[in-house]
Amino acid sequence: MTFTQALAAAWQKNDSLLCVGLDPDPAKFPAYLEGRPDAILQFCQAIVDATADLVCCFKPQIAYFAAHSAEDQLKALIAHIHARHPGIPVILDAKRGDIGSTAEQYAKEVFERYGADAVTASPYMGKDSVEPYLAYPDKGVILLCRTSNPGGSDLQFLDVGGKKLYEHVAELVATRWNVSGQCALVVGATFPDEIARVRRIVGELPLLVPGIGAQGGDVEATVQAGRTANGAGLMINSSRAILYAGQDENYAQAARRAASATRELINRYR
Amino acid sequence: MTFTQALAAAWQKNDSLLCVGLDPDPAKFPAYLEGRPDAILQFCQAIVDATADLVCCFKPQIAYFAAHSAEDQLKALIAHIHARHPGIPVILDAKRGDIGSTAEQYAKEVFERYGADAVTASPYMGKDSVEPYLAYPDKGVILLCRTSNPGGSDLQFLDVGGKKLYEHVAELVATRWNVSGQCALVVGATFPDEIARVRRIVGELPLLVPGIGAQGGDVEATVQAGRTANGAGLMINSSRAILYAGQDENYAQAARRAASATRELINRYR
Repeated sequence: MTFTQALAAAWQKNDSLLCVGLDPDPAKFPAYLEGRPDAILQFCQAIVDATADLVCCFKPQIAYFAAHSAEDQLKALIAHIHARHPGIPVILDAKRGDIGSTAEQYAKEVFERYGADAVTASPYMGKDSVEPYLAYPDKGVILLCRTSNPGGSDLQFLDVGGKKLYEHVAELVATRWNVSGQCALVVGATFPDEIARVRRIVGELPLLVPGIGAQGGDVEATVQAGRTANGAGLMINSSRAILYAGQDENYAQAARRAASATRELINRYR
Repeated sequence: MTFTQALAAAWQKNDSLLCVGLDPDPAKFPAYLEGRPDAILQFCQAIVDATADLVCCFKPQIAYFAAHSAEDQLKALIAHIHARHPGIPVILDAKRGDIGSTAEQYAKEVFERYGADAVTASPYMGKDSVEPYLAYPDKGVILLCRTSNPGGSDLQFLDVGGKKLYEHVAELVATRWNVSGQCALVVGATFPDEIARVRRIVGELPLLVPGIGAQGGDVEATVQAGRTANGAGLMINSSRAILYAGQDENYAQAARRAASATRELINRYR
């Protein structure tokens, strides 16, 4: 099963467009995990097990592991998701981007070492910087298009001959880079009008949408702008609002309640 | 001493604009290193020790370490460079790019965990994606501007109102992002005319120039296009042509000869 097929199956099976982002910050963990060498893994596994039937995918952010020398815990976490929750794809959020020979090494890291099902990547270095990921036929590559941060407009909003740069990227990916159906795009929830523009450009291409929750994106506007004809096509990411919904040892149950509420809110507008 | 100061001092002390890129590929190592758990570290340390008086900086590429789960060897390598060859700055080539809260984690990884003096980053997500690195006042951030790979033109060569996107990035970094003198730019050696354009835009800003050697860039044209008034301003990177100059156990001496020849070739045109 390819990433795209697994995602479509999870949309349906769990009736969910919710992606839970795994950005573990030990400073925000409940006190009882303090000082445990595997605290990051324990924290994330509990979140995963409490929410796996409510999501269409999980998205660990590699920086949060790398800053704590927790590569082994990241690897164990992804293996845990695959073993306990088969069919739920894992996106490694790494925003890679480099020349072909180096991208081959990154692809090895992401797909062979960590066993992720998809990776996020930057389009700035062009098509050949993405091809080494596409050489893994069952994996997905999710290209940055329009990001949800304030500085996102610095480049992405530039006019490149009657359209914005992010629109050009959407077109490029949909028409030239997505030859084998492995691509998707990142489009931030803080700009619903722009999600709609991207949707018109890319047809049914899946969109990963960060920015609801802590970043303030509007769920109704996001879903209405980004859904495909069959009410899917989106991975709507929430990280902090779910991971840190509770502060005490019941954080996993609190995360489940937050994930469930977010999933229902999303489904109301599909 | 800041990254920029260390770089300027190394240009002068070693009379060199050469950056040796550390892209270790175990398949290309001499046979006697085969099967050693610290082969990557041993290989790179020998290269570093054989070339440290001929370079202005070293540039380990993190993908080549991460693909082999060699984070500890990367950390030990950077510590080795700092201990044995003080004053030679280390650029961690990672091409990071993410929203502020995640970029803080990447900055922690690069500067606190690994102790690198500078990092490469992508400009696609804008200024706030770079600020967490700039919060470390003695460190450098080297932004992708014009890359040496074939797909580099896909985005970077787009016209954004009478100039190319890479020229806009050069201007943005030089005038708005480089407020504290910590920034530099990546400009590929395969396009000497474009190095000259970037130089005209950015004044004395340091340029990291990959693409000579294996990628075929012309040294004379590169130096003449990119040097500053005092014959410096460049970190001209060579990786494979130096690392794999020799195939047997004398690879470090072969690397020294290749580095020395490249440095002299560069100096001929300064």
